[in-house]
Amino acid sequence: MSSVDKQLEDLKAEIEDELPPGISVSDVKYEGPELVVYTRDPKEFASNGDLIRKLASKLRKRITVRPDPDVLMDAHEARERIRSVIPEDAGVTDLDFHVDTGEVVIEAEKPGMVIGRHGSTLREITKEIGWTPEVVRTPPIESSTVSNVRNFLKQEREERRDILERVGRQIHREEMADEQWVRITTLGCCREVGRASFILSTAETRVLVDCGDKPGAEGEVPYLQVPEAAPLNSIDAVVLTHAHLDHSALIPLLFKYGYDGPIYCTEPTRDLMGLLSLDYLDVATKEGRTPPYESEMVREAIKHTVPLEYGDVTDIAPDVKLTFHNAGHILGSAVSHFHIGDGLYNVAFSGDIHYEDTRLFNGAVNDFPRVETLVLESTYGGRNDYQTDQEDSERNLLDIISETHEQGGKVVIPAFAVGRSQEIMLVLEEAMRTGKIPRMPVHLDGMIWEATAIHTTYPEYLRDDLRDRIFHEDENPFLAEEFNHIDAGEDERQEVTDGDPAIILSTSGMVTGGPIMSWLRHLGPDPDSTLVFVGYQAQGTLGRRIQNGWDEIPMNDRERGGRGNTLSLNMNVETVDGFSGHADRQGLENFVKTMNPRPEKVLCVHGDERSVQDLSSALYHDYNMRTFAPKNLETFRFK
Amino acid sequence: MSSVDKQLEDLKAEIEDELPPGISVSDVKYEGPELVVYTRDPKEFASNGDLIRKLASKLRKRITVRPDPDVLMDAHEARERIRSVIPEDAGVTDLDFHVDTGEVVIEAEKPGMVIGRHGSTLREITKEIGWTPEVVRTPPIESSTVSNVRNFLKQEREERRDILERVGRQIHREEMADEQWVRITTLGCCREVGRASFILSTAETRVLVDCGDKPGAEGEVPYLQVPEAAPLNSIDAVVLTHAHLDHSALIPLLFKYGYDGPIYCTEPTRDLMGLLSLDYLDVATKEGRTPPYESEMVREAIKHTVPLEYGDVTDIAPDVKLTFHNAGHILGSAVSHFHIGDGLYNVAFSGDIHYEDTRLFNGAVNDFPRVETLVLESTYGGRNDYQTDQEDSERNLLDIISETHEQGGKVVIPAFAVGRSQEIMLVLEEAMRTGKIPRMPVHLDGMIWEATAIHTTYPEYLRDDLRDRIFHEDENPFLAEEFNHIDAGEDERQEVTDGDPAIILSTSGMVTGGPIMSWLRHLGPDPDSTLVFVGYQAQGTLGRRIQNGWDEIPMNDRERGGRGNTLSLNMNVETVDGFSGHADRQGLENFVKTMNPRPEKVLCVHGDERSVQDLSSALYHDYNMRTFAPKNLETFRFK
Ligand SMILES: [Zn+2]
Ligand SMILES: [Zn+2]
Ligand SMILES: [Zn+2]
Ligand SMILES: [Zn+2]
Ligand SMILES: [Zn+2]
Repeated sequence: MSSVDKQLEDLKAEIEDELPPGISVSDVKYEGPELVVYTRDPKEFASNGDLIRKLASKLRKRITVRPDPDVLMDAHEARERIRSVIPEDAGVTDLDFHVDTGEVVIEAEKPGMVIGRHGSTLREITKEIGWTPEVVRTPPIESSTVSNVRNFLKQEREERRDILERVGRQIHREEMADEQWVRITTLGCCREVGRASFILSTAETRVLVDCGDKPGAEGEVPYLQVPEAAPLNSIDAVVLTHAHLDHSALIPLLFKYGYDGPIYCTEPTRDLMGLLSLDYLDVATKEGRTPPYESEMVREAIKHTVPLEYGDVTDIAPDVKLTFHNAGHILGSAVSHFHIGDGLYNVAFSGDIHYEDTRLFNGAVNDFPRVETLVLESTYGGRNDYQTDQEDSERNLLDIISETHEQGGKVVIPAFAVGRSQEIMLVLEEAMRTGKIPRMPVHLDGMIWEATAIHTTYPEYLRDDLRDRIFHEDENPFLAEEFNHIDAGEDERQEVTDGDPAIILSTSGMVTGGPIMSWLRHLGPDPDSTLVFVGYQAQGTLGRRIQNGWDEIPMNDRERGGRGNTLSLNMNVETVDGFSGHADRQGLENFVKTMNPRPEKVLCVHGDERSVQDLSSALYHDYNMRTFAPKNLETFRFK
Repeated sequence: MSSVDKQLEDLKAEIEDELPPGISVSDVKYEGPELVVYTRDPKEFASNGDLIRKLASKLRKRITVRPDPDVLMDAHEARERIRSVIPEDAGVTDLDFHVDTGEVVIEAEKPGMVIGRHGSTLREITKEIGWTPEVVRTPPIESSTVSNVRNFLKQEREERRDILERVGRQIHREEMADEQWVRITTLGCCREVGRASFILSTAETRVLVDCGDKPGAEGEVPYLQVPEAAPLNSIDAVVLTHAHLDHSALIPLLFKYGYDGPIYCTEPTRDLMGLLSLDYLDVATKEGRTPPYESEMVREAIKHTVPLEYGDVTDIAPDVKLTFHNAGHILGSAVSHFHIGDGLYNVAFSGDIHYEDTRLFNGAVNDFPRVETLVLESTYGGRNDYQTDQEDSERNLLDIISETHEQGGKVVIPAFAVGRSQEIMLVLEEAMRTGKIPRMPVHLDGMIWEATAIHTTYPEYLRDDLRDRIFHEDENPFLAEEFNHIDAGEDERQEVTDGDPAIILSTSGMVTGGPIMSWLRHLGPDPDSTLVFVGYQAQGTLGRRIQNGWDEIPMNDRERGGRGNTLSLNMNVETVDGFSGHADRQGLENFVKTMNPRPEKVLCVHGDERSVQDLSSALYHDYNMRTFAPKNLETFRFK
């Protein structure tokens, strides 16, 4: 008998000991980090108050109870009964019964009403039908990404269960290593922005944290070919801090190269990764590059994803526990905390963070029981990288909008689809609602609409007052009537151009392609309109050039067969900083300063050479910690 | 056709172009780092002055010319002719003909006379017989190690040729890496003395430098299980700086774990490694530990050894050239210089060094065209680790010997078999020859005699004036009549004990076992005799305890069935420092200071925590270099 089977047998006996008489356990299995308990008495299980919670805390495992297939109530009857238990107002849009596991997935507009106070309605459902209910939110704005991912996972359910069982046995294997150490190897994003990737290793386990691309330098990918990462199938787990391509783009590539294990990330990160990596392939093809992998690999990645919620302490290897915490950067972004061994060592990877609250998100969490080493992003770590307060920035933006409106022009804002667009939407919605600017249409072009739809699917990941508005007051600001999705292409853009004052939010954020090019063609010549940059424009992008004063813009207009024709830019050009998704220098220092206890060591990464050096030396001098500005391909040992 | 075959074909064509008419090339092969040229016209090749030298410098390869087997002169006839060419005085002791390669190995007491001025006699031999002569020295003192190694290699000749051909093709393979980097990973001997082991890696190549044990902590072996070293058979080359067990003990283990490539070291290092690692297995068995490998693996290691001479620049991988330089530490010890890429980077590993000349060896070489990073031993790197001048130490030792002689006692010197024993032998020989101390027998017990025999086999590796004495004047000091090999066990020791004043040099050097225990039993109770420590006594050894004043010594005397009986130590105990094989703090600083150009970076290793920190900070402050005191399991990137 393998050690895992022995372990499961022991767990089964222990559970049986704990259960009141009359409740049986027919089987016990691992599925990923969870322990699945099959019972012939699901209804009795549900009736016994917080039995599951007690078991979980006794065994120190995440526990799911499922009915033994033999005792399942007929799905047709169960459907009726569920409908009778759940209040009408919950807005159930779909019920999906899985006979193989006895689970029923309930999609509802108001998941809270399906769950009930402290889960009471869910327990009621099980008591009625014996099936195990699982709840997901019906996207308030239809999202093709969310429905594609959900349908795909439904379809791959069986294979996924095999994967999870394999992963579960792997996580709970017997520890073999007779040495102890904790190391981090840098595979990318050191003294550079882009291609985030690290290996966190112990004598027992190897974890890959992030695997991104380097925008503008497509050949420079993480150093996956080094022995520390080889062979890829020997890596225990991949942890993805957030969906931005500089952290996620090459995750699907891992599967092409033989990785076959779990991807841990939050649920919104999974969906956004799907959206962004498919777009990444698309852009590569359009630009005439060979994409590094096929879209099939994106599906593999999604199939291998094990979603975790903020605060869940999860075993991902015999000697590694992972906990995600809100990072305040984009939807689902996570500071990733690793607890290694039995109190041996703790490492946190910041991923990308925003320390202050924004309209969209609460500020990054920096409160951990223990962290000896922090791997810290340093995008704005330079000595002069202080940003304008968002309040001032907003006033500035609204002034520009008002002036442009007065002179009858239109405001065009190039923006990244994920994060900054939604932040600006919230600013605009409030300003119009409170009369700070006149009401006018806000047109959303490119992936912004889809990204917004994903945001509204996961309100739990948004700032608490925003979430409350969405939950309790039916005041979802993203559903404001001013917002219009540009979904009819050039005709619609022409119409907007010919129409009354309006605001346009369009990708790409750095004016390197996408519908923003079309908006420039339409509105660039108009001296009454204004182009407003609200995000960082990288060296070498058209956005940066326009910021620098270019007013003759080469338009490589493939669609119209044109080549080399030039556009005269007569519209006003403004820049409003302060909307960054990254902590500025002050925010980074505050993040570290307010940690308690402070980490002993900080590795400053994810910033250009000057930024990481500046931040590293400032943290060393001001807070007396050991700080490093690693190079790629170095290994640090901590224990 | 493989790229190596293509390369060989091109080389053959190039050689044919260079050769005068009438000299043919029948085949061209790699054997290890050498290019072997087979010809039907070996005699003509030999007649053409320095044709081989010219070819070698044109092709930038090490070249060996061998006769095509078809044209070989009969061995019996060749034997006669050789005898007629070589002067009688050369003292030929063996001729060994290898029909498969057309080589004849000539073992002679005076190899110089077989070689002739600038190789003239060797060329004469080839002109006469067509065979390719190779010369080895007849050990002036019979050495079972040397003869065992030579016989073994003779017997394994065919497999060895297969290995070398495979290694040669591996070295000259096409470079596949499309990235460039140079890294060092520390697998041992960082902030500790013992288990020296490093990986030097590029995108193309991995080289393991040393693989030793940690005396007194047998469980602590180099971290070979980390991904940087896995799988072992993917490592291109193993480089051994010298034969001490803390650098070599686990080299044979590599073959047990799947390594099947070359070991680069000097010829004496190969033989000493054979001697010491077999003894290592022996000691482990005697102490009741399970040896980590069988003696068969020692033979594997010897079979895979590619011996290099000091100063030979040798390709060991497509992008790595290795050059050994005298390290002044023990026989055959080498500072190992790596030139990486085409001028990309240079790293030198000091191994263990002695910077000043000693009686046995010239001081360590520190003169390299370029070295950007130096990996430096720090055994005596501590701020107070200054040693007495050897001159003073010798006077001190001779005084003690004279006094003991006057009072009719005997001098017992525990000493390491390799290095320090021979140094002391030279001191004693001179002192008696020049009348500084009375002539008296010097008894050599344990492996000292055998180690001395190996020294006399390789006089080229000894200090130049010592070598000259051995070569030209037949004044080999190791053959002085005072030296006696204790080879008749306890009876002989009893005889010595009962006899006139004498000096005894005996292993082990730290009084942890071996014949020194027997000498303590014999002479320990004698108040007229003296025990003199001339080497470092580690914490926890009996030697250190005696130094600290213990005079009741527990004797676990298995041979006599005794247990726990105690010996009263009445003999005098003296310590004379200054005979170390390691550079002291001043020597280490001088080694670095006089390098020109100085390295940019120095990694201080092979010393206890305090020593590496002290040395690292001193070199940083005094010479303004970037210095590090790495931990085990860290990786540094240099390019
Ligand atoms: Zn990001
Ligand atoms: Zn990032
Ligand atoms: Zn040594
Ligand atoms: Zn050593
Ligand atoms: Zn072999």
